[in-house]
Amino acid sequence: MEDLQNFFELTATAVDREMASLIESAEIEPPRLLEAIKWSVFGGGKRFRPALMFAVGETYGVPTETLLRSASAVEMIHTYSLIHDDLPAMDDDDLRRGRETCHKKFDEATAILAGDALQVLAFKAVADDIDLEEAVRVRLVSGLAEAAVQMVAGQQLDLDSEGSSGGPKIVERIHRNKTGALISFSADAALIVGAVGEAERECILRYASLLGLMFQVGDDLLDVTETTETLGKTAAKDETSQKLTYPSVFGLVRTQEILADIYERATALLAAVDRDTARLRAITDFIVHRRY
Amino acid sequence: MEDLQNFFELTATAVDREMASLIESAEIEPPRLLEAIKWSVFGGGKRFRPALMFAVGETYGVPTETLLRSASAVEMIHTYSLIHDDLPAMDDDDLRRGRETCHKKFDEATAILAGDALQVLAFKAVADDIDLEEAVRVRLVSGLAEAAVQMVAGQQLDLDSEGSSGGPKIVERIHRNKTGALISFSADAALIVGAVGEAERECILRYASLLGLMFQVGDDLLDVTETTETLGKTAAKDETSQKLTYPSVFGLVRTQEILADIYERATALLAAVDRDTARLRAITDFIVHRRY
Repeated sequence: MEDLQNFFELTATAVDREMASLIESAEIEPPRLLEAIKWSVFGGGKRFRPALMFAVGETYGVPTETLLRSASAVEMIHTYSLIHDDLPAMDDDDLRRGRETCHKKFDEATAILAGDALQVLAFKAVADDIDLEEAVRVRLVSGLAEAAVQMVAGQQLDLDSEGSSGGPKIVERIHRNKTGALISFSADAALIVGAVGEAERECILRYASLLGLMFQVGDDLLDVTETTETLGKTAAKDETSQKLTYPSVFGLVRTQEILADIYERATALLAAVDRDTARLRAITDFIVHRRY
Repeated sequence: MEDLQNFFELTATAVDREMASLIESAEIEPPRLLEAIKWSVFGGGKRFRPALMFAVGETYGVPTETLLRSASAVEMIHTYSLIHDDLPAMDDDDLRRGRETCHKKFDEATAILAGDALQVLAFKAVADDIDLEEAVRVRLVSGLAEAAVQMVAGQQLDLDSEGSSGGPKIVERIHRNKTGALISFSADAALIVGAVGEAERECILRYASLLGLMFQVGDDLLDVTETTETLGKTAAKDETSQKLTYPSVFGLVRTQEILADIYERATALLAAVDRDTARLRAITDFIVHRRY
């Protein structure tokens, strides 16, 4: 566990440095736009997606340095989605990672543009990654785009379902699109760069899909059980905005059972992988147990 | 002129068909998101950027079919920027191409997401373009991203300058970023695909940069001289929102002189190109004379 903490910290340091360099080399002129981008990117995120990418890379012998650009790109896409999701027209959140959201700190126009810019910078980072062959970069851009479209579709489904009595299928679809797609791509990027064979790739992608679902179901639970202070974002927000979540559809007890079940399936998939999956198992345990 | 009209119509037909196919194959599930995307994309744009790309292609013997994906990508990036620029937090426009803007027809959240989705689809279209070599696709993704970042920076500069007494340099910088970058890339995409040599590329890019400036200065003039009905968007909008424009900085008469001067420089550049530039000259004339 201490080892995993260290791994997360190393990941965050490396990815933050890379993102800082990418943002600087973009030479964004308007100071307000640049500040808004930095405010949101360097707001103390967990860098969970990069950590997963590096962990899959570790499993298949892909060096972290080779994945730095892709990991930064994923984190920038994730950050842009948070900026836009927090907007008044969307989830209307004032607090994120313990501080003001982008549109509160700056203004709505700047927040929309900061999100737009981050999205572009992510694709540019992958396209310009001279450490990778062009054929690999093209696959990464395509995969990242595919995940980003699913994420947008998930957010639309989420908003359209607010206050509705959607069932288990809809809430699972929202989660798979909104959070799952980008988490799965994070694993896939390492598999693509490592040229991992289809059978193993399939297995890891099924695992990553379950991990993504665990992550979001866990988030749903934390929203109910934790305080605004520990979360760093407004607690009980899902209920007040009548979001479709696992607890709202299944109730707390059943949601915890579902989470345990997904965990079992995820670890079973890892057990079938003929590699050292210690890091991935540690991450899986961390996600199922997290309380913050 | 009649020939040019025909060229624009053929361009629009081809690009619209390609965009329809790209949007369909993205399998966007939420019906509201899909409708919003279609509403904005198929709202009767001139497809000026694709036409410029095809015209440069024609000049260097690059077949239109080879550029269809890139042209569609540019048009999708352009459309996303219009959707976001029209939002209440930005330029707050209700009318675009003679009909309701995306957020008026649907809602703000859907408009933000439709713009986000279009941006991603543009990058995916280029990355997946199997008619082009991977090395070419990577250059196109990077160039498109570079232009899109500049466009966002230009919009931020534009908003930040509202009501300010910025001078000639600032208004030129806004225009070069906000409109010029994507128009220049439209020309560049054809040059990249056609593997046109650096010297010629340099010349065409300087021409495209002037054409882009002409285009926007012309837009500034039209905003002052035309009615909402002929424009299909709210007339005299720049003045009411205290935008920094060529007429606001230089006055009407001087702006017309500047436009004529840019036109001279642009045609001089074309004259130096040792190719059949009839189509590009026709486009240049069209831009300087347009009244609609």
